[in-house]
Amino acid sequence: AMVDKGVDFANYFCTYAFLYHQKEMLCDRVRMDAYYNSIFQNKHHFVGKTVLDVGTGSGILAIWSAQAGARKVYAVEATKMAEHARVLIKANNLEDVVEVIESNMEDVSLPEKVDVIISEWMGYFLLRESMFDSVIYARDHWLKPTGVMYPSHARMWVAPIRSGIGEHKRGDYDLAMEDWHNFVGSTKSSYGVDMSILSKPFSEEQKKYYLQTSLWSNLHPNQVIGSPAIIKEIDCLTVSVNDILEVKADVFSSITMEHARLCGFGGWFDVHFRGRKEDPAQQEVELSTAPCPNNGTHWGQQVFLLQPPVHVDQGDKLNVSFSMIRSKENHRLLEVEFGCDVTQSSGKIPHFKNKFFIE
Amino acid sequence: AMVDKGVDFANYFCTYAFLYHQKEMLCDRVRMDAYYNSIFQNKHHFVGKTVLDVGTGSGILAIWSAQAGARKVYAVEATKMAEHARVLIKANNLEDVVEVIESNMEDVSLPEKVDVIISEWMGYFLLRESMFDSVIYARDHWLKPTGVMYPSHARMWVAPIRSGIGEHKRGDYDLAMEDWHNFVGSTKSSYGVDMSILSKPFSEEQKKYYLQTSLWSNLHPNQVIGSPAIIKEIDCLTVSVNDILEVKADVFSSITMEHARLCGFGGWFDVHFRGRKEDPAQQEVELSTAPCPNNGTHWGQQVFLLQPPVHVDQGDKLNVSFSMIRSKENHRLLEVEFGCDVTQSSGKIPHFKNKFFIE
Ligand SMILES: Nc1ncnc2c1ncn2[C@@H]1O[C@H](CSCC[C@H](N)C(=O)O)[C@@H](O)[C@H]1O
Ligand SMILES: Nc1ncnc2c1ncn2[C@@H]1O[C@H](CSCC[C@H](N)C(=O)O)[C@@H](O)[C@H]1O
Repeated sequence: AMVDKGVDFANYFCTYAFLYHQKEMLCDRVRMDAYYNSIFQNKHHFVGKTVLDVGTGSGILAIWSAQAGARKVYAVEATKMAEHARVLIKANNLEDVVEVIESNMEDVSLPEKVDVIISEWMGYFLLRESMFDSVIYARDHWLKPTGVMYPSHARMWVAPIRSGIGEHKRGDYDLAMEDWHNFVGSTKSSYGVDMSILSKPFSEEQKKYYLQTSLWSNLHPNQVIGSPAIIKEIDCLTVSVNDILEVKADVFSSITMEHARLCGFGGWFDVHFRGRKEDPAQQEVELSTAPCPNNGTHWGQQVFLLQPPVHVDQGDKLNVSFSMIRSKENHRLLEVEFGCDVTQSSGKIPHFKNKFFIE
Repeated sequence: AMVDKGVDFANYFCTYAFLYHQKEMLCDRVRMDAYYNSIFQNKHHFVGKTVLDVGTGSGILAIWSAQAGARKVYAVEATKMAEHARVLIKANNLEDVVEVIESNMEDVSLPEKVDVIISEWMGYFLLRESMFDSVIYARDHWLKPTGVMYPSHARMWVAPIRSGIGEHKRGDYDLAMEDWHNFVGSTKSSYGVDMSILSKPFSEEQKKYYLQTSLWSNLHPNQVIGSPAIIKEIDCLTVSVNDILEVKADVFSSITMEHARLCGFGGWFDVHFRGRKEDPAQQEVELSTAPCPNNGTHWGQQVFLLQPPVHVDQGDKLNVSFSMIRSKENHRLLEVEFGCDVTQSSGKIPHFKNKFFIE
């Protein structure tokens, strides 16, 4: 896994250098409340302690850690946002406690090991962006043997859903192909070149774009038509990069809604702040990105659409085989496969399998 | 000017690997007609000749060159689009004439020098993308001393314009700042952190985004309120990269509209196919991207907005000092400065100067 740092910066880090983007995260109240409460309701983890904030961005988690009583906070940020963080920390009179280090986490050398590693590393569907690798690296190099991770645990979920968006996407795709065929016709008649040989690769490109790319969505709970299932559980203290390179799970879901259309699957995650067994949280905090009638998060859920939908009914049994790997072209993006067997009272629906891209 | 090839691929070339993007260019009829006519109305430049197509994309210009009678066409393309071009060329039975080479132009070694270099290298406002560098490189290495360039000449234009879009952009910027100030207030009250020190850098970021980034636009000729002026003339046969690193010009424009608002400047280009002096075109062809009531091109015009607009009147004289350089962070993007003195019958308007980014 050789990663060209310049390319990674161009593809990934660049957006985090904008205050506009940091502000979007700072305006996510579910996210903010969870981290805020995890810190201020568990001050015993911070008072007099040393803290490492991996990817400090604007500096918010480092500032809270200091305000909660940390002796020293190392705030590491790869982008130029580090300069804004430094200014913000000074304006809040915390420059004696918080040290901002503008660097890739992997290149940092700290003067000491730390009691706490705090980080907001979660991407869409938890693992997009692969930033958790850097947190694991930080943990293995800089966390004391007695140290705690904030958050301490993470889980990934999938559930069968219904949604009207599939029809729209299908319509967009059909229109794009209709347009293509007109284009082929007029290129032949006006310019004497027959482009029809490219119809297949064009349709594949468009299918990938409209039908196989997962969609950001803020699902309503009533769009979830069956029992959600956990496909991955992570203990942030012990997990290795190897454990998250691939996610594979065979899970079961039971349809809970009468006469529903199975339009696809929704995927989301939650994380927990529980401290560690020998040094637990006084107040456990959860940050969930599950479908929710109000208070959505900026992560929303990822939606993977089936084309066409499948008619299902209450009590139908779904055996879902899920698999997710990193994209070969860009280790921060993901490729997902959903296989599914539906068992109905009237018999079985033929097995289907769909591939998706999280871009 | 050290350019990291991987980064350049991630930032620039990647879009050209999509048929969707090639199709957009292939659907630009003004562009297509100009190249088509330049070739088929000047067959004497192609019959029995060797041709190099720099950045062949889908292969269209190489195919036309072959159809017009070229003996051999080298079609060079840096992206995976080369594979589609190869398939298309075979489907049109031209594989014996056209050889597709998947490579950066700068890394290619041809078995012979060529009679014609054809290329569609023009970016927004002519020079965005800096692809012309690669055409100059190809010319210096692979064009015979008697060879011709397709196109042979290029010009850049600016003109004073009126537009309602400036108010919108100003409104968007004001809203973004209002939103920011609410955010600062609630971050202080809910989370105990004072973000106000970042208000200035945030406003600069937003100003750059909303007010200083040039806009793609398809201007109507009646939005041009004064005489257009040429700021650069390029002879494609003799120009060097050094000549296009910077564009500087002091030009004059006279307001042609009564009681108008000078809202900014429009910038566009044209190119000509004239062959070379000793071997001229039989039929000269022009490709213009000037404002036009119908038949816009995919290039449109670049609009540089003044905030706020200036009231001008017929006969007012504008002395415009234009300067354009490449962005230090990305050599394919541009930074532009417009200085302007307006002389009215009633006297002079104070000199103003504005900086813009072509992103
Ligand atoms: N390997 C790495 N080293 C340093 N910073 C990293 C990193 N990987 C990601 N980051 C940074 O981590 C941040 C994640 S976003 C979270 C920002 C902030 N902690 C908050 O909670 O609001 C981004 O600013 C990104 O640039
Ligand atoms: N240095 C270089 N070497 C090879 N190809 C290049 C290049 N710089 C740009 N290109 C390619 O040049 C193309 C420009 S777009 C024009 C495509 C085609 N000639 C047409 O007229 O429709 C893109 O496909 C881009 O990938």
